[in-house]
Amino acid sequence: MSRKPYKLKIIPLGGLGEVGKNITVIEYRNDIIVIDCGLIFPEDEMLGIDVVIPDISYLLKNKEKVRAIVLTHGHEDHIGALPYVLKKINAPVYGTKLTLGLIENKLREHNMKNVKLNKVEAGDLIEIGCFKIEFIKTNHSIPDSVALAIHTPVGIIVHTGDFKIDYTPINDEAIDLRKFAEIGKKGVLALLADSTNVERPGYTMSERTVGDTFNDIFSKAEHRIIVATFASNVYRIQQIIDSAVLFNRKVVVSGRSMINVIGVATELGYLNIPDGTLIDINDMNKYPYDKVVVITTGSQGEPMSALARMAYSEHRKIELVPGDLVVISATPIPGNEKTVSRVINQLMEKGVNVIYESLADVHVSGHACQEELKLIHALVKPKYFIPVHGEYRHLRRHAQLAEDLGMPKENIFVGQNGSIIEFTRNSCSFGPKVSAGNILVDGLGIGDVGNIVLRDRKHLSEDGLIVVVVTISKEDGKIMAGPDIISRGFVYVRESEDLMGEARDVVREVLRECEKNHITDWATLKSSIRDALRGFLYEKIKRNPMILPIIMEV
Amino acid sequence: MSRKPYKLKIIPLGGLGEVGKNITVIEYRNDIIVIDCGLIFPEDEMLGIDVVIPDISYLLKNKEKVRAIVLTHGHEDHIGALPYVLKKINAPVYGTKLTLGLIENKLREHNMKNVKLNKVEAGDLIEIGCFKIEFIKTNHSIPDSVALAIHTPVGIIVHTGDFKIDYTPINDEAIDLRKFAEIGKKGVLALLADSTNVERPGYTMSERTVGDTFNDIFSKAEHRIIVATFASNVYRIQQIIDSAVLFNRKVVVSGRSMINVIGVATELGYLNIPDGTLIDINDMNKYPYDKVVVITTGSQGEPMSALARMAYSEHRKIELVPGDLVVISATPIPGNEKTVSRVINQLMEKGVNVIYESLADVHVSGHACQEELKLIHALVKPKYFIPVHGEYRHLRRHAQLAEDLGMPKENIFVGQNGSIIEFTRNSCSFGPKVSAGNILVDGLGIGDVGNIVLRDRKHLSEDGLIVVVVTISKEDGKIMAGPDIISRGFVYVRESEDLMGEARDVVREVLRECEKNHITDWATLKSSIRDALRGFLYEKIKRNPMILPIIMEV
Repeated sequence: MSRKPYKLKIIPLGGLGEVGKNITVIEYRNDIIVIDCGLIFPEDEMLGIDVVIPDISYLLKNKEKVRAIVLTHGHEDHIGALPYVLKKINAPVYGTKLTLGLIENKLREHNMKNVKLNKVEAGDLIEIGCFKIEFIKTNHSIPDSVALAIHTPVGIIVHTGDFKIDYTPINDEAIDLRKFAEIGKKGVLALLADSTNVERPGYTMSERTVGDTFNDIFSKAEHRIIVATFASNVYRIQQIIDSAVLFNRKVVVSGRSMINVIGVATELGYLNIPDGTLIDINDMNKYPYDKVVVITTGSQGEPMSALARMAYSEHRKIELVPGDLVVISATPIPGNEKTVSRVINQLMEKGVNVIYESLADVHVSGHACQEELKLIHALVKPKYFIPVHGEYRHLRRHAQLAEDLGMPKENIFVGQNGSIIEFTRNSCSFGPKVSAGNILVDGLGIGDVGNIVLRDRKHLSEDGLIVVVVTISKEDGKIMAGPDIISRGFVYVRESEDLMGEARDVVREVLRECEKNHITDWATLKSSIRDALRGFLYEKIKRNPMILPIIMEV
Repeated sequence: MSRKPYKLKIIPLGGLGEVGKNITVIEYRNDIIVIDCGLIFPEDEMLGIDVVIPDISYLLKNKEKVRAIVLTHGHEDHIGALPYVLKKINAPVYGTKLTLGLIENKLREHNMKNVKLNKVEAGDLIEIGCFKIEFIKTNHSIPDSVALAIHTPVGIIVHTGDFKIDYTPINDEAIDLRKFAEIGKKGVLALLADSTNVERPGYTMSERTVGDTFNDIFSKAEHRIIVATFASNVYRIQQIIDSAVLFNRKVVVSGRSMINVIGVATELGYLNIPDGTLIDINDMNKYPYDKVVVITTGSQGEPMSALARMAYSEHRKIELVPGDLVVISATPIPGNEKTVSRVINQLMEKGVNVIYESLADVHVSGHACQEELKLIHALVKPKYFIPVHGEYRHLRRHAQLAEDLGMPKENIFVGQNGSIIEFTRNSCSFGPKVSAGNILVDGLGIGDVGNIVLRDRKHLSEDGLIVVVVTISKEDGKIMAGPDIISRGFVYVRESEDLMGEARDVVREVLRECEKNHITDWATLKSSIRDALRGFLYEKIKRNPMILPIIMEV
């Protein structure tokens, strides 16, 4: 009698149906490897939340199986949850040099020392448990990004990580297309590929095109230049520095994460900065305005960023003046359009010139567009396809793209976070789901803010709060003090004294009624106060504040 | 001795440095006319606010001078504040037929009866006070839009309103370019022109192109079609109906404002709907799925809209099924990208096909792009130029466009809300500013939510609230009851009992200390509690809730 074959499981715990929080489990018998370990920034309605990390309860249940966490590149949506996860699962981490460099910084901030970081490079083949993992050079908006070819007992899985195809990258080589072709030729069981830009036709432009724009801008600028971009885009930073050197400008760096990344990238050899190019921000005023470039954070209009502080005249070292030129070398991430626009308006009101995306080619994406995706699909030619890294609309569109390329519909698996996709050598199917989702981080609290707390925050944010306090006698239920009414976030009290006075009368009336009817149980008392006050306020002013009745007994 | 000449004043009270809340005052001696009277929707940080209307204190101070409110078209950002303003200023209103039709609806909702609405049409010339006002046919995303040529004692002022140039509009005529040319030839003192699309090169496509796309989509659809668009875009609605008729589909209307506008537009002759085309939503299921089109609101992903309710299976009448096709015939307004995307994802997860902007030409803008703006500037050839209707970045860009066309820099006036721009026959300059700004409407309260209330709402929304109540004795300051600690929006209490217990200990300790040191004044007591608790919580959990100490005395 033949034994039922073991199955390979691919379980995305994050990154499906969202852009961020990428984490994928690859499991076979007693071996698990985890690919990436990212965070996502909170949605608008997650009030007060700092970051969101994946629910890893499945990994915690299978802790002893986890052999490694393997990282594709150093962006927050791929490494940001690592400190949180490593506190609970002590697994060795594998990544390329820059990725590990950025992680070291992060672990230091979290005061974590005993993490085993294993450096790999593109071209390496390592063995972990029953898996062999090959690291393949790709291009992306951060150096040292890799795709993975995971040789499993049932076949090869290719995971692209985040990628684009750049034939003329900066300080770097093009994506190793021949390796993709070679592995494709061997036969690939499944492809997991980046879906971020699948709605965009054509090709993503080379990073180098931005350098041409910079040279053009720098050649014409007669005043100070300030360039805002993503701190992790080391290529972009290199090009700003190259243009600065070409046009004899000194470079000043502003913004914590920018200083951080430039430090790490320079130390590890990813940035080539001629001696004497960087100057201290405090020395900036020793140079004429047309001899200075500032590289800064804040390209997303983040309110606390260096660029926003410059725009609002709150930067301690840099005071922008009319004639300065700000280049925003980034596209607003969906949801950030308004904050970016606000910073642009603010800068312009100061008389600063601003160049942004719609005015010049000052940014290119780090993700593959349709034609690049088709190329990878054609080279890898997998039997099964799992679109990853994208909202549902992107995953669906990517599935359609694969179908258009000739893949049978039934070989395409559009999963969700927590889906189990099970493989044998010649089959693939959805298994039962495991728990997956969002863990909210607020300050030091991890997961202690849930739906009830968020619902209360939303309620408080929209209509504010009214606290009603009354002290009653233990013996006879008589009112000893109060009722006092305190409001916050409700109305401007000085203008609404009448309203608050009437509200107090409403509560007094309720208490009188309750006393008359010998109602002394607190729950009834409180809900009577709440109901009466809610009705009164809605009638009067069509608002619905949170009402918090508090009864003290003496 | 010659008398100092009277000046014409143009005072934008809204619409500059923002997209919305358009209202402009034109004043000469004892006559004021107000052009448009719009609202704007609240920014994200205006928590709980429903709408924002302009501060009209300048008009209130000059109430007796206000001769008329003249409207360019029926969009909310041009008429939305009218009920609020008319409650304080009893001026006659002038507008075209559809504009007034929409206003009547609005006034009815506000229970306002005695407003004098005066119907005008493009081509009319009316006299109000010392002004003659000519109404000029334009194109926009709502029918019956007009520009104004205001003949004043010092010269002609042209105000474009919102406009585009559409040579092939739907059920309508093209913008009256010859009138612009004719007035331009007479000599125009100043032009005020729409700046919304000034960052876009080229021309805005004709509304008609969308109809071609609809026909293409309808010809292929094999299931139900749901089209979401702006309720006020009567042209778009006409084209959906035309395609429906062409492909033998019945039309169902969903969404309060859609039903509203279709009612008004049909009654006034702006929509041409063949008998038997519209069917009641309750009869929809009598028809096969491929014989039905639903026209609905919700193209901006608004959470309570009909489309969002369909997406989340909360619509009482329409249950979407796999195979249905949703067409989102709109572009997300900046700030709405994420809500729109969420609805698209949700629809796709139901197996519904979704066509949106990046997939097909299902929308065109209602505003003029660069080449159209240049044409109007060239025809009108004003002496002075005031860019209006746009964020600061748009106004600046529009000023640049005028300069590129040869206008002297010093003849361009980029103002702010509240700026006075003063004209004589041959001069123009900024005068002193008047008060202008935002009045926040929350429920029935107008202007009673200010910065303090918003700051509290923000604080509450981010970290929640802790109320500390203690009852002390009037005689000796001894604690009679409490301290009790109640929290909302802070932590999930059941998981944090220890923390709350420790917090109570902190408060007890403060009270003990105060008692020992005979501190009985409430202000000190409260601030001691607040400080101690704030320090404790930040140390423990890095959060900073609002702390509300309440002391009762018995």
